Amino acid sequence: MTDKTIHPDACVVGVDFGTLSGRAVVVRVRDGAELGTAVHDYSHGVVDGVLPATGRALPPEWALQVPSDYLDVLRTAVPQAVADAGVAPELVIGIGTDFTACTMVPVTADGTPLCDLPEFAENPHAYVKLWRHHAAQGQADRINDLAHDRKESWLPRYGGLISSEWEFAKGLQVLEEAPEVYAAMEHWVEAADWIIWQLTGRYTRNACTAGYKGIHQDGAYPSEEFLAELNPAFATFVADKLDHPLSALGDKAGTLTAEAAEWTGLPEGIAVAVGNVDAHVTAPAAQAVEPGQMVAIMGTSTCHVMSGDVLREVPGMCGVVDGGIVPGLWGYEAGQSGVGDIFAWFVKNQVPPAYHEQADERGITVHELLTELAATQRVGEHGLVALDWHSGNRSVLVDHELSGVVVGQTLATKAEDIYRALLEATAFGTRVIIDTFTDAGVPVTELVIAGGLVKNRLLMQIYADVVNLPLSIIGSAQGPALGSAMHAAVAAGAFEDIREAAGHMGSVQRHVFTPIPENVEAYERLFLDYLELHDYFGRGVNDVMRRLRKFRRDALEGKN
Amino acid sequence: MTDKTIHPDACVVGVDFGTLSGRAVVVRVRDGAELGTAVHDYSHGVVDGVLPATGRALPPEWALQVPSDYLDVLRTAVPQAVADAGVAPELVIGIGTDFTACTMVPVTADGTPLCDLPEFAENPHAYVKLWRHHAAQGQADRINDLAHDRKESWLPRYGGLISSEWEFAKGLQVLEEAPEVYAAMEHWVEAADWIIWQLTGRYTRNACTAGYKGIHQDGAYPSEEFLAELNPAFATFVADKLDHPLSALGDKAGTLTAEAAEWTGLPEGIAVAVGNVDAHVTAPAAQAVEPGQMVAIMGTSTCHVMSGDVLREVPGMCGVVDGGIVPGLWGYEAGQSGVGDIFAWFVKNQVPPAYHEQADERGITVHELLTELAATQRVGEHGLVALDWHSGNRSVLVDHELSGVVVGQTLATKAEDIYRALLEATAFGTRVIIDTFTDAGVPVTELVIAGGLVKNRLLMQIYADVVNLPLSIIGSAQGPALGSAMHAAVAAGAFEDIREAAGHMGSVQRHVFTPIPENVEAYERLFLDYLELHDYFGRGVNDVMRRLRKFRRDALEGKN
Repeated sequence: MTDKTIHPDACVVGVDFGTLSGRAVVVRVRDGAELGTAVHDYSHGVVDGVLPATGRALPPEWALQVPSDYLDVLRTAVPQAVADAGVAPELVIGIGTDFTACTMVPVTADGTPLCDLPEFAENPHAYVKLWRHHAAQGQADRINDLAHDRKESWLPRYGGLISSEWEFAKGLQVLEEAPEVYAAMEHWVEAADWIIWQLTGRYTRNACTAGYKGIHQDGAYPSEEFLAELNPAFATFVADKLDHPLSALGDKAGTLTAEAAEWTGLPEGIAVAVGNVDAHVTAPAAQAVEPGQMVAIMGTSTCHVMSGDVLREVPGMCGVVDGGIVPGLWGYEAGQSGVGDIFAWFVKNQVPPAYHEQADERGITVHELLTELAATQRVGEHGLVALDWHSGNRSVLVDHELSGVVVGQTLATKAEDIYRALLEATAFGTRVIIDTFTDAGVPVTELVIAGGLVKNRLLMQIYADVVNLPLSIIGSAQGPALGSAMHAAVAAGAFEDIREAAGHMGSVQRHVFTPIPENVEAYERLFLDYLELHDYFGRGVNDVMRRLRKFRRDALEGKN
Repeated sequence: MTDKTIHPDACVVGVDFGTLSGRAVVVRVRDGAELGTAVHDYSHGVVDGVLPATGRALPPEWALQVPSDYLDVLRTAVPQAVADAGVAPELVIGIGTDFTACTMVPVTADGTPLCDLPEFAENPHAYVKLWRHHAAQGQADRINDLAHDRKESWLPRYGGLISSEWEFAKGLQVLEEAPEVYAAMEHWVEAADWIIWQLTGRYTRNACTAGYKGIHQDGAYPSEEFLAELNPAFATFVADKLDHPLSALGDKAGTLTAEAAEWTGLPEGIAVAVGNVDAHVTAPAAQAVEPGQMVAIMGTSTCHVMSGDVLREVPGMCGVVDGGIVPGLWGYEAGQSGVGDIFAWFVKNQVPPAYHEQADERGITVHELLTELAATQRVGEHGLVALDWHSGNRSVLVDHELSGVVVGQTLATKAEDIYRALLEATAFGTRVIIDTFTDAGVPVTELVIAGGLVKNRLLMQIYADVVNLPLSIIGSAQGPALGSAMHAAVAAGAFEDIREAAGHMGSVQRHVFTPIPENVEAYERLFLDYLELHDYFGRGVNDVMRRLRKFRRDALEGKN
């Protein structure tokens, strides 16, 4: 530790705000030992059916949250984690958080969410728009078309496409669908920053989400001219609602207020780190802070984050942001929109009773059974190749109208065959991302895996073989919360910077899986077939997937 | 009836020799009433694992049968059917049969199967080679390559490809792998004709299998020059083993011998019809004896037969034979190698437990449940398009290396969605065949459905909508056996010809399903997507399916 005045048993708290719950973890500063943890489920969860205040159904594609749920995590999970750790609260010297993104809160000048005001409680636009609120697609399409026409320099920084999930599309939707809410909101705030405002009593805006979700590039946001062309009333959106000094990751946002100290049971005045994003804090937790170390956080979907010492425009990436992961390097982000989700869908929808019965009898999951059966196969034995687009394609095609394909089924094809083909398809998807980065001049030299899927050893070996890189595995099962705690340690002055914190508190097992040469060679052949189908279905040779989506929508609307 | 001396309650017996069993039916001549039926399972079934006489395993792709099993059908099923009918055996005036094809028996001069001789009992080549014996693919490839190089005029009559299932490929395999068996066999006989030999005591060769399976065209077989180029020892194959006067369908092959009368319990001396093939006898049973009336016999696979008054070379058909279905017309045949097999594979391998439980609770099959759920959907609602090649493609691509595909799966895709997409895919497959016939100058004007799948009303409506033709349904559930009985009636002189017999004894419900205009229009769109994928995967744009098959074979041999 840099600061020798810090108690040798000093701890920090990291809080990971996920989609359905918040997790707090208490970590010892000197060695990263995770001493205690607790989880709190949001009582409102994701509000995508009926708005509780009105009992009225929300339109399709909406996904809201209730901000008081986040405060409940501070009130319950944090003190429970401290109790679970068995440490004196006085030993806690800082708190850090990470959040889903882009998740947006419309607030008054003092940070009060508009939905907490009686006059707006029944207006859905006054609530938090969760990252997976997809109802601003029309606005996103207009942003992209206009940016493309005007050749806006920031567009290539996002792989050529601004998402409907991000700050501008969602903000424009509020303006156009609820001008009274838009007028009343003093700030359009990332939840990642809103929670810090609650802890410190002051608004800070983190550079990470400002860059990845707020289109902040080279010190500027999109211009007034650009915004005026979208909608004259939107011209001053940046100046009126968004602009705020940026804070670097790992900086101290402020100190814990008396009120927040009462919620959490932590000492008033301890350091609070600048807000951050779940995937991005995981990189230092896995000691992946150098150029070329790509971290894949593999769960229902996969997020890829990597730092680089050069700025390159990588086709189809989610974004590149100066200091977006660690200060001083360019932070790159990419992703696969369906990974564990696809495996779960398959197990739920396409596996016959005999497998479920056998798994039950043996006391293992169907996933484990299928993995065990698939693991006995040689590469190519199932005769299948699949495309992993059941939930669309985030990188590098950035097309959510794409869908899944399995080619090669015969009357001899069994569930484990398709399961393995789907595992492989997601590995091929990661391979495409890695190749695209490398081809764009940002070489990937090591793949570090975090997230729930690390426990599937067959999947890990397939990834090593397909990408032909040694696979390292994060040491912690609570990567994001640990990463947040590390940022808290930096903010508290225990370490010089996040790199030093990563060295002491992060952990990774290097090269747990290494490529098996004969598998690498076999997968090289199969990958070419994946790639040919990838380009055929994904790059406009045959737009059948888009037509099928439209056909489905038309049918559901009674138009066929 | 033509012959007024025939008893008004006269009956005929039809016997359908299938892959696993033989079915006899007793039919009243004057009106086609099916009075009794019985089935006998072959005690040896399909011999594709171990040869009973040796206990040794057969090589892959082999499929044999034991000829005495066929005689057991005559001994058991025929008398049982007569008993079931409750008619006096004296009222039976004729017997007709149909058989799987091409199923080949190597015999001595008196028709004794070589496998019945002690010296050959342990030689697998001395047994019946069932239609689905696929171990002569190497010989078939050489036949096709050579015929293509020599521009043999008969090749286009088979859509450009001779099957490994047929007489020449199988015969050449015997010569090359068991020359001693080849030398000992006096005749290489279709089982369809062998059974008639047993009933009548004399060898007749039917024009149907000689044309479809024996490459008999325009009065000739492939030339000695051609055969010599395949293998010098094969030059006289036709003259030595195959050539025999041909008999027209519906002709009288002879009369029932005393020995066969004893087996069957039928009167000695009654008429025995010339041998025939299951699919082909079904056409008159469904009163489809005029040009343009295509009969689709839909079961595990589908066979399409249709008569035409012109000779045309239809790409990818199985064959066209003069008098191949009814004398005086060209008989066309095409097929889909997987239909009901694909649905059965899906239900067995891809349907999760909840569906099985629900079907059990309701006392219906999973097929019925999925059909019921799929029937509530509008066209296109599932967002999928599939290729029905899980068992390869017989017509019009003639490629057994092809495989199945489902495009468009999302995390919302359910079992009934894929089930419906597979039903539709087989309808699209039939549509391709119909369009190919029509484009080649042999227009299809009516589709008549026979076989076990007629009972699925959703499937039938989908076919009507996809092919945009009224669907007629055969009146009998035992189409082949009824058709054989009708040929017996003609052979016995009860009718002038099979057309007249069809008018009295056949039955069809005309236009049971008619196209629904809005579905026709919607399927027209979806069919274009099917067709684009059909040509992409099936016509060499992307040979990924062939590569996957090879990759799989290599993997199973430990080469990957």
